[in-house]
Amino acid sequence: MHRTRVYAVLIDTPEAQAAEAASFWSAALGAAARVDKREPQFTVLPDALPGLVTVVQSVDDAPRFHIDIETDDVRAETARLLALGATEVSDWLECRTLRAPGGHLLCVVPVHSDPDYFAAHAHTWP
Amino acid sequence: MHRTRVYAVLIDTPEAQAAEAASFWSAALGAAARVDKREPQFTVLPDALPGLVTVVQSVDDAPRFHIDIETDDVRAETARLLALGATEVSDWLECRTLRAPGGHLLCVVPVHSDPDYFAAHAHTWP
Repeated sequence: MHRTRVYAVLIDTPEAQAAEAASFWSAALGAAARVDKREPQFTVLPDALPGLVTVVQSVDDAPRFHIDIETDDVRAETARLLALGATEVSDWLECRTLRAPGGHLLCVVPVHSDPDYFAAHAHTWP
Repeated sequence: MHRTRVYAVLIDTPEAQAAEAASFWSAALGAAARVDKREPQFTVLPDALPGLVTVVQSVDDAPRFHIDIETDDVRAETARLLALGATEVSDWLECRTLRAPGGHLLCVVPVHSDPDYFAAHAHTWP
């Protein structure tokens, strides 16, 4: 048995335009922007979307979005999603990146939310 | 003065893979899928994301996501986003499709939510 919750929506943006994109999304969605000093590729827009962390990420790739799913068992959730038809793309630190049928990316990450918030909002899988 | 709210996240998927993608995201996010009979290109996943409508849309394009912003003044919101650096892509029915700095798509649409819910959760712009 493990639990999951959609944690974040990431607006992945080519590096040359990432700063401009972060300013745009901050103003468009009415959410203050905060750059993570330890990980400056991430600009976080708290409260841009209800109950989700919204991030503009600078990437060396075409514009895309991806979703982060947080879980108390990364291995089990990855296996569940692979059984549903996803394919493995990469491992990066504790993040398992998968490609969904249809071509979109999603990442499986350890729980980032407050544990009580996670427990209150997570799905439980057998 | 006008008001806006992020209404929907759309998982735009190449037509040949749209049905498989809808099944995947429904199972992955633990949300029942409902095809809109009047607009069968849309598979709605109610409750997949908190406070947002999640939709798998069949498109004649590469995999992408986009965000729908609902507003009580489509013209004013479109003008606001263009002034922030977005560019116009197309008009389709009442939807104005824009491209954000960085390359992502977003649509400006009339209010779709319950009016009281919209009023309680919308941003107001001068």
